[in-house]
Amino acid sequence: MGKEEKARLDPWGITEIEDYSRLYKDFGIKPFKQLLSKIPNPNMFMRRGIIFGHRDFEKIVEAMKNKEEFAVLSGIKPTGEFHLGTLMTAREIIYFQNQGAKTFYCVADIEAYEDNNIPFEKSEKIAVGNIADVLALGLDPKKAYIYMQSKEMRVRNFAMIFARKVTLATIKAIYGERNIGLYFSALIQAGDILLPQHEDFGGPKPTIIPVGVDQDPHLRFTRDLAQKFKRKFGFILPSSTYHKLIKGLDGSPKMSKRNPMSYFTLHEPPASIAKKISNAFTGGRPTVKEQRELGGIPEVCSVYAINMFHFIEDDKEVAKLYSDCKSGNIICGECKQKTIDIVLKFVKNLEEKRKKYIDKAREILQVE
Amino acid sequence: MGKEEKARLDPWGITEIEDYSRLYKDFGIKPFKQLLSKIPNPNMFMRRGIIFGHRDFEKIVEAMKNKEEFAVLSGIKPTGEFHLGTLMTAREIIYFQNQGAKTFYCVADIEAYEDNNIPFEKSEKIAVGNIADVLALGLDPKKAYIYMQSKEMRVRNFAMIFARKVTLATIKAIYGERNIGLYFSALIQAGDILLPQHEDFGGPKPTIIPVGVDQDPHLRFTRDLAQKFKRKFGFILPSSTYHKLIKGLDGSPKMSKRNPMSYFTLHEPPASIAKKISNAFTGGRPTVKEQRELGGIPEVCSVYAINMFHFIEDDKEVAKLYSDCKSGNIICGECKQKTIDIVLKFVKNLEEKRKKYIDKAREILQVE
Repeated sequence: MGKEEKARLDPWGITEIEDYSRLYKDFGIKPFKQLLSKIPNPNMFMRRGIIFGHRDFEKIVEAMKNKEEFAVLSGIKPTGEFHLGTLMTAREIIYFQNQGAKTFYCVADIEAYEDNNIPFEKSEKIAVGNIADVLALGLDPKKAYIYMQSKEMRVRNFAMIFARKVTLATIKAIYGERNIGLYFSALIQAGDILLPQHEDFGGPKPTIIPVGVDQDPHLRFTRDLAQKFKRKFGFILPSSTYHKLIKGLDGSPKMSKRNPMSYFTLHEPPASIAKKISNAFTGGRPTVKEQRELGGIPEVCSVYAINMFHFIEDDKEVAKLYSDCKSGNIICGECKQKTIDIVLKFVKNLEEKRKKYIDKAREILQVE
Repeated sequence: MGKEEKARLDPWGITEIEDYSRLYKDFGIKPFKQLLSKIPNPNMFMRRGIIFGHRDFEKIVEAMKNKEEFAVLSGIKPTGEFHLGTLMTAREIIYFQNQGAKTFYCVADIEAYEDNNIPFEKSEKIAVGNIADVLALGLDPKKAYIYMQSKEMRVRNFAMIFARKVTLATIKAIYGERNIGLYFSALIQAGDILLPQHEDFGGPKPTIIPVGVDQDPHLRFTRDLAQKFKRKFGFILPSSTYHKLIKGLDGSPKMSKRNPMSYFTLHEPPASIAKKISNAFTGGRPTVKEQRELGGIPEVCSVYAINMFHFIEDDKEVAKLYSDCKSGNIICGECKQKTIDIVLKFVKNLEEKRKKYIDKAREILQVE
């Protein structure tokens, strides 16, 4: 193995679905790596470069270091069960809660209606399961404000106030030519992001919004509004971190509901999950013989990706999987079986825990 | 006087600010005249052709005749004191209340903010005076639902639900290229217009919205939404009547805040009102002599217009003023003085009554 090739060897260097460096140049997202050493207690997404970019995260580092007040906000669009994407965000928010952040978790039922035509009554039912999940994953409801978008009047008031300063040109540039409801829900989301800074919650404070990189337009839109209403409300521009997105299990460009083999939810039948992992696109070679000789290509492997992103907590264990694959020590069949075991154990455990939180979730959301 | 000229003589035939017949053809507004004889107890605006057009007013006639449930809704944008435009609408709503309508009066503070940048706190103060006025004019608060737009969640919920079915193309066609807040306030107004049909108020029912003809785009927009959400909410398409608009007192095309000599509020100093009427554009002749000989032209006279629209209740008295003017029996100076006396008496009386309703208005609007 030449020196150059060795330099490229990196268990966290998963092939990216797009050229992230473009984001640094074109949109002003900053690389996360440079901040890593300053973070008191980085989580596995940070350590592994899954969180690769940020805006104004320095403010959050300072707050964490100096034990000053800060907030985290994230949420879920209640259109279905938890999947790996919502799992990631939930874990990020739980991490920041554990680091001392005032925690806000939003059920985006307005967005679910405007964007996906899910009636509010249906969102409510789905949300109960979602909230039970996030509690089962470790969110402490006593230290969190969990709310339904449609019932949170402060958010709607913010949206109403912000709307006056949003030109049609701006919103079209970000969201394209859509129905007015979609624009309305974009404003609502800006209201969510700034809710932790509402006077009812103690006013302006650094706030971290951990998102997938595809969500950055919302952040730019909201930061722009925060600037416009700085004098009126004293807003501090919200900070954000950006995590990478995994390709679909079937090798498609992204995990998507439209493509059921590309992803699984955390509550689908174990046999279905196992089947999807069994059929997953990997970095394997055409024959076992070749793979033993040449090794696999974990960088392009969706099974490696879900292990690295979600299911192996110990960095050393991930590094071992990486080198075992790379060296041909482990081949795809064995690796898939191992992964299935881990995933099914995880979902079984989550399922059991979640049951205990259903009543609590109903209570929080005030659903009968 | 030839036969033809005589046929044109009509105390209600005031020169119109635009060609209303176009509205019948292009927009489907129907002439009001044909319904007049079927209305149990027409008001002076109806009798005098000031209300000249309608949509679906037949439904309201039926409800009035058969003593069936119907509603009336109107409102005020709290940007200043009552003037002749808001006075007209207030009188129309009071008329329908007296005919048995469930009555809704909306303070459009969201619109005042989005369209005129009036902060909500300021709107609230202005609204107290406005509501005291409408009570002083005779609205019975015990039989009316008077509300602030920004505090009425059912209206905002309607707006949110409607938004999804409003394309950018539609709203741009009606309102032009505006900020998103303005579009939002248009949706809120649709929510207002359909509020009387909300299940909390007994569900679908004929509703009359009396407006100036310039407000028809809102009606068309709302009727379109009522149709789109008919299945979901059972809406009956709202009915409307259209009244003519008076030209500015100074002869400008319309009464407008931008042009203070064109109008007066009902609470400005008597001397100021008197001055504006004294300087008003009339249908007088260059000399007194000519006017005695040829008569005046009430059809183009703004002083005649405010008498006919607002200040003389008895039809016979209006007809007399018309023929006195037409025949040269009365000339402008005398007529203006008479008008000033009537108007100042009216505003003095209103001012006194209004004082007694300020506390009630505060209570209704929940303003401290």
